[in-house]
Formats: sequence, structure tokens, C-alpha cells
Amino acid sequence: MAAMNPVDLIRKKRDGKELSRAELESLILGLAEGTVLDYQLSAFCMAVFFRGMTPAETAALTHAMLSSGAVIDLSELPRAKVDKHSTGGVGDKVSLCLAPLVAASGVAVPMVSGRGLGHTGGTLDKLEAIPGFNVNLSLARFRTIVAEVGTCMIGQTPELAPADKRLYALRDVTATVESIPLIVASILSKKLAEGIDALVLDVKVGRGAFMKTLPEARALAEALVSVGTAANKRVSALLTDMSKPLGLTIGNAIETREAFAVLHGGGPADLVECTLALGSEMLRLGGVATTEDEARAQLLVAIRSGAAARVMERMIEAQGGDPRVLEEPDRLPRAEAQVEVPAPRTGFVTAVDALELGLTAVSMGAGRTRADQAVDHAVGIELMATVGSEIRAGEPLARLHLRSASHAPAFLARVTNAFAIADAAVVPQPLVIERHLSR
Amino acid sequence: MAAMNPVDLIRKKRDGKELSRAELESLILGLAEGTVLDYQLSAFCMAVFFRGMTPAETAALTHAMLSSGAVIDLSELPRAKVDKHSTGGVGDKVSLCLAPLVAASGVAVPMVSGRGLGHTGGTLDKLEAIPGFNVNLSLARFRTIVAEVGTCMIGQTPELAPADKRLYALRDVTATVESIPLIVASILSKKLAEGIDALVLDVKVGRGAFMKTLPEARALAEALVSVGTAANKRVSALLTDMSKPLGLTIGNAIETREAFAVLHGGGPADLVECTLALGSEMLRLGGVATTEDEARAQLLVAIRSGAAARVMERMIEAQGGDPRVLEEPDRLPRAEAQVEVPAPRTGFVTAVDALELGLTAVSMGAGRTRADQAVDHAVGIELMATVGSEIRAGEPLARLHLRSASHAPAFLARVTNAFAIADAAVVPQPLVIERHLSR
Repeated sequence: MAAMNPVDLIRKKRDGKELSRAELESLILGLAEGTVLDYQLSAFCMAVFFRGMTPAETAALTHAMLSSGAVIDLSELPRAKVDKHSTGGVGDKVSLCLAPLVAASGVAVPMVSGRGLGHTGGTLDKLEAIPGFNVNLSLARFRTIVAEVGTCMIGQTPELAPADKRLYALRDVTATVESIPLIVASILSKKLAEGIDALVLDVKVGRGAFMKTLPEARALAEALVSVGTAANKRVSALLTDMSKPLGLTIGNAIETREAFAVLHGGGPADLVECTLALGSEMLRLGGVATTEDEARAQLLVAIRSGAAARVMERMIEAQGGDPRVLEEPDRLPRAEAQVEVPAPRTGFVTAVDALELGLTAVSMGAGRTRADQAVDHAVGIELMATVGSEIRAGEPLARLHLRSASHAPAFLARVTNAFAIADAAVVPQPLVIERHLSR
Repeated sequence: MAAMNPVDLIRKKRDGKELSRAELESLILGLAEGTVLDYQLSAFCMAVFFRGMTPAETAALTHAMLSSGAVIDLSELPRAKVDKHSTGGVGDKVSLCLAPLVAASGVAVPMVSGRGLGHTGGTLDKLEAIPGFNVNLSLARFRTIVAEVGTCMIGQTPELAPADKRLYALRDVTATVESIPLIVASILSKKLAEGIDALVLDVKVGRGAFMKTLPEARALAEALVSVGTAANKRVSALLTDMSKPLGLTIGNAIETREAFAVLHGGGPADLVECTLALGSEMLRLGGVATTEDEARAQLLVAIRSGAAARVMERMIEAQGGDPRVLEEPDRLPRAEAQVEVPAPRTGFVTAVDALELGLTAVSMGAGRTRADQAVDHAVGIELMATVGSEIRAGEPLARLHLRSASHAPAFLARVTNAFAIADAAVVPQPLVIERHLSR
């Protein structure tokens, strides 16, 4: 086959024609080979933004990006391998309680996660709040821990889908992030590289999510399920609410502590529900439960018996962390100052703005606006009221965790204004909005 | 003013919003400063391809590209300065006879031209067929020759609209050439840098042109006139036919020879008409004639008196060439072999495919497919019949000018097939299809 001219491939997409698998491969693999240049791929991404991609094109793009690197071979593990991916939100610490819980229930969870960027947090930052915890392991070590413990949580390595890393960096600086086929290929190429049998997707919807509206989130969920299924994986997607933060904490150490509470049988109701809903899908796809009720029952047993907490301890220990944090969470970093945010009036909390609180937490140092920034694991926002809470003027809406009480004035008004308080209560939105199941 | 984030500007265009003059300037000038990167500008160009630009945006983009370099100061010249730009075609040697003719009629013509690329020829390549002719002059020397001779024809220099050079190279490899606002800004930024008072545009329409259809060509002409007028220039655009080659020659030396014939009062009717139509617009815009009839009369006087030919001789001499070529055109390079292409049947020529003949001439060596290729000035295709000609089977349709007669078989069928011959004659399309005049 003659070398394909990247200009012709860009023009073809620009003019709304469908690219073949070979054409998409030559574009993506050409980036590493130097036959396709950054400025050509960014123009291509913009053409995709306007023209979209067919399901076949999205599947081929995903495959090409997956093929740019290694696929972890977990085939010698007897257990089903199932992972979860969230499209990102505020207060989303689900992975930290979900992975050990599902592993304790008989399904292996090989999890490659990301860091926080912008208003959304990242699993790696939350894990690193645990003293000594190392997210940078070799793939060989990752495989060993998954085999021995049942789960392991690391960051993306240079071996896995390197084309995605390069393409994402390019999209980020060329206003081409918001394209469903490009998002799907980015998510799935990384997740399929984990060597999994099945994948559950948590597609967040609402102000604090990447997808602000139900139709957008539904389109993304459908595309993820369809392309994942085309790649011979069992895939489910849940659309879950991200109009308000998930759980009652936003920050790294305080979110990790809240995830530990779930493993101990506590934790806020929405976080528990999100964990059980996603976990039961993972058990179902992993073949250790046939119905949701059965799966939920197994998960609750794994919590009550302490099995889930024991898996978490073993994983922390295997990854160099201090396993005592699970039973002694005061060993997690703690901010020097706690400052309460009083309610300005009496009434019912009718909305909590996840986006604004996420951005405020970033300003406090809990997150980053550029990929190369460090985060402060100790700081964050603890909610003391949420949608549905009845509150009296002067009672605390939230507690700020700060390096110094002198930092509080910069954040008080923003946090106060993120709460809507009215005379009448509203019925909170259910956490799981829709399910998109593969076959 | 805070530095503008290029990502925000790309997103704004992507989402169909109008960019301000300052925003477009920061994008274009940022390219040279390194604050805007190639892959950002290519994504921006693709967004412009889909979203277009308002007239104000196109004018601002033109201004930003013009501002990236120097503007030649010809203000000390007492005469009006008017140039012509053609969007490019096959056999288009008009500049070579037009510039000296208009200069001989009292309007200065400072002309910065281009080279051939793809199926279209370029003025610089045709000029370089003249022994010794130098198109690479300093701007100071250019100014002196325009002042003393009335016209000078050079290639683009690094000082003039450098942003256009960089942007065009980027568009060429990212499938973003075909965008009217980007074409308009590219043409006008270079032409306005010449220090002209007015500009006449020859927008070619048809198979051999960049714009294949009348609506496309009309949209380009209207945009050129409107943006040029917004830049305080008098601008006219003529839409002229490029379904068949202009004149009877395609190649460098043979086209230069045909242009000389026009200066001597001869030449094919369509070439003469194109030259007079554009020339009379230039005289009108330059203020030395008020009506087209008056302008045409002045141009014919300049031809008949020999004044136009004398300007050409002086320009050739000033640019290092051998001025004797004008009266002794056999001094131009001549191919070793001439091979006639016989008509396959008797009838009337109803069409001559300009695109196919342009591409064939490139294959013969007369043009280039990449900007860094050299051209053979001697080779080309001479038409011996054109639309409307009556022809008998076996009589010559064309004469190939080749380095060796052994090359002929590769081209005979292509040239033959470029001629449509039918039993009945058709009325040839008029050369000038439409006029778009500024104010």
C-alpha cells in the first residue's frame, strides 16, 4: 500500500467522508513515525469536531490509539477483569472505595487512573494523600499486585496508548476536546490497554460534569457502549448526577477519608449508592452475579465482613503506603485550620453548585489549572449541608480546610453563594439517571 | 491588555462567534512571537473553513497579516500605483503584457508575483525564461525601477507579509486552503504591502481555475472587493473564463513569447481582450481615464506607438535580462523537439480542458507539484485549435514542445483527449463574465 498523504485524509474528513480503518491508523501511527505532524493532527481534530465520526470510524480510531502502545496481558489471571471509568466530577472519590470492594467480591480490578485538572479531581491525587502511596509502578509490578491483591491503582505509563497522551495534549491547546468520537477513543484506548474483559462507565451529567446536559451525556454513553462492544468488551454506562458534588467532601485527603468510611459501612448516601450501582454492574459484567439485587447483596457482605477494607489495606501496603490509615484516618494529612461557613438565612438547601465548589477547591490549592502543578492534599471543602437539608441562619453550610485561617476570607463568599436556600424543600434528583447496558 | 489565550480564540471561532481586530492580531502576530503555535493556527484555520468570517474579521485578518511585515513606501512617486492579481489559471501570461502596457499609459505598476504550483503557471517562471532576468531584487531596487521605468516585477521578499508565507505553508499541508476569508487575507495582505492605491483582481472561473463554479468565484470576488475597499483601496474584480486555457500557449518561454506578441499588436483574441479589460480597469482606478472606452483607446495607442514594448525592454534591462528578446524572441529558450498532435476526427472544437492541459504541461516539466522543484522553461503545449475552430481529421490540434521527440508518446493521448470535437460548432463563452467594481 502506498503511503497515505495526511493532507488527503484531513480533506476527506473535512468534506464529510468516512475514513477507513487503514486511513485512521496511518494518521495516528504516523504521528509517532513523524509522517504526520502536530499541525496536521490538530486540523484533523477540528474537522472531526465539525463532521463527527461514524461508529466504525470511532472504533477504528480507538483501535489505532490502542495499537500505538502495549496492552497489559492479564490472561493468566483466572478471575474476570473489570474496570470502571468516570468522565469526572467534583467530589468523585468512588474509585477508591469501589476497586477494593469489587475485588473483595471476586472480580479483579486493574485500574489506570488520572490526575485532577480544572474543576474535577483525580484518583491519583487522592491516593497520594496516603503517606508513602506510589502510583508510579512498572506494568510488571502492577500485574503482580492485581494477581495477588485483586486490584491495583496506578497512573498512565508511557507504554499504554502513547498516541492518546500526545493527542490529548494537542486537543487541550487547540479547542478540540469537546468532540464525542475523540473523547470515546481517548477513554477506551487507555482502558482497553489494561487488558480488561469488561468496563463500566460512570458518565457524569450536570454543572459539575464535562457533559452539562442529558442529551450530550446520553450521546457520549451510547457511543462508549457501542464502540466498547465493537471492541469485544462487555460495557455498561450509568448516567449519574453531577449537578451537586458527590458525597460531602471536595479535596484530596478528606475525600480519601470519606471513601474509607464507605469501606467501613458508613459514608454519605449518594456516594454509597454510586459505589453500589457501579459495583453491581461490575459484578454482573464480571459474571459473579446475574442480577443487580444479587450483586448488591454480595457487595454489602464484602463491606460488612471487612473483606473490602482488608483488600484496601493490602493494596495500600503493596503500593508502598501506610495501611494503618484505613483504621486510623487521622494519619492522613490534615489542614491546620478549619473554618465554618455559616448559612446566610434559614430554609432548605435546594442546590449546591458543584462547578463553583470545584473551582473554589482548586483556588484553595486542592487541584490544578495546569498539568504540571502540584496539589495540596490537606486542603478542601467539607459540606455540612446538601440538597434537601434544612438549615437555620448561622448554622454551618460547610467547613473549609485551610493551611491558615487567614486564607478563609478569600473563599467564604464563593462557598456561601454556591448554596441555594429557599423556603420550601425540593425533592433531590436520583443519583442514577439512566443505564445504557451492552447487549 | 492581558495576553490572549490562543485556545480561547480558537474556541470562539469554533463556536461561531466573531473575533475582534485585537484578537485576530494576537493570533497572527503571536505566530512570529512564539505565543501561538503552528498546531493552534492550523486548528484555527480549520474552524474558519467551517465557520467562515464576517467582512470585519476578514479585513482585520488581512490587516494583521499585512502588519506582520513592511509596506513598500511609494508615496514619493507622483503617479497612481495600481496592481493586478490573478487567482491563477492555465496559460495566464497576462501580467507580462499588462504591466508594461499600463505603465506606458501613465499608471505605475509595482508587481510582486508568484511561481507556478500544480496545474497553474506563475509569472516569475515565465519572466525567468528571459535570459538573465532577475526576480529577486531588494525592495530599494524594486522602488527605483518602478520610479524610473513605471513597472517592476519581482517575487515575494521576506519583508512583505511574512505571516502570510507561514500561514499559507501551513494551510497547504492541513487541507485549509479552500476558505474564502483565508484566500482573501492571503491575496490582499501581499498586494497591500506593495504600497498601491488600487488593485484590479482577475478572478478566474472554470475547470482550469481554483474556483470551478460561478457562485464560488462571485463570492471570492465580492469578498476581495469589500475587504480591499475597507482597507481604503479602490478595487475592481473581473470574473474571467478559465474553462479553456487563456491564449494559445501553456509553458514558460512560449507564453512569454505570446505576451510579447500582444505588446507588438498581435496575440490571440482572448489574451488581448483579457489584457485590455484588466488594463482599462487599472487606468480607470488609477485616474488616468474616466470611461472604459477612453481607457481602451489609450491602451491601444500605447501598443501601436511601441511605448508599451519600450517599457518592457527597459524593465527587462533594469532587471538584468536581455532586452533584445522582445524584438528577437528566438533568443528565448526553445525546446529541441516539436511534435504535432493530430485531430482524431473532423468537426468543430467545442471544449479544451484547461485543467488537463495544465497538468500535462506540469508532467512535461513546465511546472511543479512541489514548491521546491525547478521548471524547464523551454517545454510546453502550443494550441493550434481552440474552442470554435473547425478542424479536419489529421490536422494538428496542438504542438508539443519537448526536450526530445521520444517523450511525445507519454503526452499525445492526454492532449488529444483534452479536446472535445463535435459535428456542430458552439458559441464560445465570453472572456469577461462579470464585473465587481468598488463603489
